[in-house]
Amino acid sequence: MIAGSRRRWALIVHGGAKPMEPGEEQPNREGILAALAAGRAVLEKGGTAIDACEAAIRTLEDLPIFNAGTGSALNAAGGIEMCAGLMDGRDRQVGSVAAIRNVAHPVSVAKRLLPEKEIVLVGDGAALFAREHGFEYVPDAALRTEKMVLEHEHDTVGAVALDQSGNFAAGTSTGGLSGSRVGRIGDSPLPGSGLYADNEVGAVSFSGDGESIARLVLASQVMATIAKDGPEESIRKAVRQLPPLGGDGGGIAIDRRGNIGWHHNSPAFVVAFASSDAPEPKAYLSKEEERRV
Amino acid sequence: MIAGSRRRWALIVHGGAKPMEPGEEQPNREGILAALAAGRAVLEKGGTAIDACEAAIRTLEDLPIFNAGTGSALNAAGGIEMCAGLMDGRDRQVGSVAAIRNVAHPVSVAKRLLPEKEIVLVGDGAALFAREHGFEYVPDAALRTEKMVLEHEHDTVGAVALDQSGNFAAGTSTGGLSGSRVGRIGDSPLPGSGLYADNEVGAVSFSGDGESIARLVLASQVMATIAKDGPEESIRKAVRQLPPLGGDGGGIAIDRRGNIGWHHNSPAFVVAFASSDAPEPKAYLSKEEERRV
Repeated sequence: MIAGSRRRWALIVHGGAKPMEPGEEQPNREGILAALAAGRAVLEKGGTAIDACEAAIRTLEDLPIFNAGTGSALNAAGGIEMCAGLMDGRDRQVGSVAAIRNVAHPVSVAKRLLPEKEIVLVGDGAALFAREHGFEYVPDAALRTEKMVLEHEHDTVGAVALDQSGNFAAGTSTGGLSGSRVGRIGDSPLPGSGLYADNEVGAVSFSGDGESIARLVLASQVMATIAKDGPEESIRKAVRQLPPLGGDGGGIAIDRRGNIGWHHNSPAFVVAFASSDAPEPKAYLSKEEERRV
Repeated sequence: MIAGSRRRWALIVHGGAKPMEPGEEQPNREGILAALAAGRAVLEKGGTAIDACEAAIRTLEDLPIFNAGTGSALNAAGGIEMCAGLMDGRDRQVGSVAAIRNVAHPVSVAKRLLPEKEIVLVGDGAALFAREHGFEYVPDAALRTEKMVLEHEHDTVGAVALDQSGNFAAGTSTGGLSGSRVGRIGDSPLPGSGLYADNEVGAVSFSGDGESIARLVLASQVMATIAKDGPEESIRKAVRQLPPLGGDGGGIAIDRRGNIGWHHNSPAFVVAFASSDAPEPKAYLSKEEERRV
C-alpha cells in the first residue's frame, strides 16, 4: 500500500458548510484548529485513524459554535436529535447512529457500534444502546445553546484520517437541521452518502444539504473517481451536482497516496489539515481564503 | 431515451432472500405473482413506475408470508419496526422511513415523503408523520403472525419498474431482522445501498444481509456497472462481495434499455417478472429453478 509507508499520517477536519456570521470567524478558526490538534495527537503517537477521527469530532461536538453535540440544532418540536457515523477503511466496518437523543458525543456511540452485529441504530433504539453501554444521559437543556435557539442551521462536522499503519477512516457528526420534522435524517450517518473509507481507495466526509447528498450518494461517487481525479477535483465534481437538486455543500478527502483535498460550493467551509509531509497546521474558512493566502 | 419508446414497460418484484421452508413454496409463488399482477396493472394502464412499485410492495406487505408490513419480524424487545424506501428515476427523489412502527404499509408512508423537504424519517418521527398524514394506527398485534413469533428472519421485499413514459422506480420494504436491537436498520431504506433509480441508468433493489449491503453501497455499484455489464451480471458482481463480509443476498434490476435481470447467492430468492416484450409472467424461487425450467 502506497500510503502505508511508515510514519506517514494525514488528517483533515471540517466544521461545516454553514454561512459564517460576523464575529464567528475567530471561534470557528480556533475550534477547527483545536479539533485538528486533538486528532493529530492520536496520529503522531501511532494511534488509529478511527481514534483520530473520533478525537477530532469529539472536540467539535464539545464546542457550542459547531452544530454537533453541544450546540446542536433544534428540530420542529424544539428537541435535539443528532446523527453521527464512523467508517473504518481496514474492513469497511461502519458504526452509525441516527436521530439519537441525550448524548454528548454521538460519534463515540457510533464508534461503540463498530464491533457490533447491528451497526446502524436509529431513534430510541440508538439512545437505549448508548444507555446500556455507559454513555451518560445528557438533557437537551445541556446541549442547547442560545445561538441555536435563535438561528437556523443545517450543518455537519467531519474528519478524515490516514494513520501511520496506512489505515483510513472517515467520520461525521451533526445536530441536524433547525426546525426540521422530528426523525429527519440527512446524509451524515449513511455510508456512501455522508462518508466512506476504504484502505484501497482513501476516505471522504461530506457536509451540506443532506437530502441532496443522500440522493446523489456523493461519498460513493468520490470513492469511484478519487484515484483518477485526486481528492480536490473529485469533490469539486461531486458538489457541482448539488445546486441542480437545490443544495450546496462541501467535502474533505484523503486519497490512497496520502494527498489531502477539499472543496465546497457553500458560502463557507471551515477546514484545518496537516500531515507528516506538511506538519504546519493550515486552517481556512473557505476555498477563496486559501487561494488568497 | 431508449427505454422511453411508447408502450414499453417492465416490472420485476421479489419476496426476499430468505431460506425457503418446506411447504412455503406455493404461497411464496402465489404471493409474488399477485404482487407482479398488482404492479403490472398500473403499468399497463399507463401509470407511473412509482405507483407500480408501491402497488406491488403493498401486496407483499399485506401477505403474512413475506417479512414486510403484516408478518414483520419481531425485534429483541418483541416489537415490530419496519423500513421502506422508494426512489423515482425521473428526479432521483427519495422517500424513506426507517424503524417506523404501527403502520400497515410502510412503502406508502415512504411514497408520501417523496414531495417533502425531509425525505428520510426515522423512529418516532416517522410514525408521527404517518399519523399526521392519515395513515391508520395499526397495533403490533395486528402485524404479528404466528410464523414470526417462531422464526428467525432477515428479509426484504422489493420492486423495480419501468413505465410507458420511460420512467424508472425502485422500492423496498422490510420487517427487519428477528431478534435485532431496537432501532436497528439495514440497507432497505438507504438510497445507494438497498435501492436506486435514475432514468439515465435504470433501477435496482436489493435484499439480504443489510449491514453488508450498506457497507458496500451495493445499489450504487450496480448503477455504475449496469450499462456495461447488463442487469444480471451487474448484480452477480455485487452480491459476490457479500460472503467475504459474512453475508449473502439478491437483487433485481432493469437497465436503461428495459432489460430485466436478477441474481442471488442466498439459498433462495423469490422473484416474478414480466414486460411488454415478454408479457407472460414468470415466477421462480431461485436462479437454479429458472435454469432448470
